Amino acid sequence: MEQRVSLITLGVTDLARSRRFYEQLGWQGQEVQKTVFFQAGGVVVVLWGRDELALDAGVADAGVAGFDGVVLAHNVRTREEVDRVAADASGAGAAVTRSPGETFYGGYAACFTDPDGHAWEIAYNPGFPIGEDGSITVPDLDGT
Amino acid sequence: MEQRVSLITLGVTDLARSRRFYEQLGWQGQEVQKTVFFQAGGVVVVLWGRDELALDAGVADAGVAGFDGVVLAHNVRTREEVDRVAADASGAGAAVTRSPGETFYGGYAACFTDPDGHAWEIAYNPGFPIGEDGSITVPDLDGT
Repeated sequence: MEQRVSLITLGVTDLARSRRFYEQLGWQGQEVQKTVFFQAGGVVVVLWGRDELALDAGVADAGVAGFDGVVLAHNVRTREEVDRVAADASGAGAAVTRSPGETFYGGYAACFTDPDGHAWEIAYNPGFPIGEDGSITVPDLDGT
Repeated sequence: MEQRVSLITLGVTDLARSRRFYEQLGWQGQEVQKTVFFQAGGVVVVLWGRDELALDAGVADAGVAGFDGVVLAHNVRTREEVDRVAADASGAGAAVTRSPGETFYGGYAACFTDPDGHAWEIAYNPGFPIGEDGSITVPDLDGT
């Protein structure tokens, strides 16, 4: 299995509401057959009905539990951008679950959940370089 | 908010088990402070303790509910690669939740869940071009 991800599909309960939410944050997508596709750098973020998504994946869905067990991070180049995106998300109806502030790794971040509870972190992390195309690179962490 | 994703963090209950699972699929990562980072094309897949992840994001965690509400797709270039990755995942201990087969969109796919129930789709989708660098592009879908 090559080391990459192609699509991130978020199960939603009200497609129009979710699409509107991401559009209010400035994203633009295409909708086909009740599915919205957002080109997001080299990957694609997809919105699709949660029921259909679970069925398609062959997994049983007990419903929204409050936390997906997954967090998507959107890294930015400045602290100010963290503040701005968090404010925009709040304005679009997101629940800001962590106010902008310093992080344990020497950065600055905020978190919010979208209308279906999907969690996003908006992070300024000077240790993880962002390319001109928006791609992100893990530095040599001197780990194992 | 720029239209891109930087990191996808999967909450896990046994970091060593999860790291081993992805390594059995051929991935290589770096581990620092009980966190594993996998460079995955222009994004980073991160494994981190589910409890810490929820706490960090400021969201209440009711525990694993069976379905995240999120599916990660890994698109490949041939039907045979779908079969191979599904077999490798099964061999590494994944639950194959959808056996390899034709899809409604004219492709071929399989789904599995990792040791924490995070769902992956391995998909051959001739309609979504894969670049040489592994990036994926939404075609003109003639949508709205």
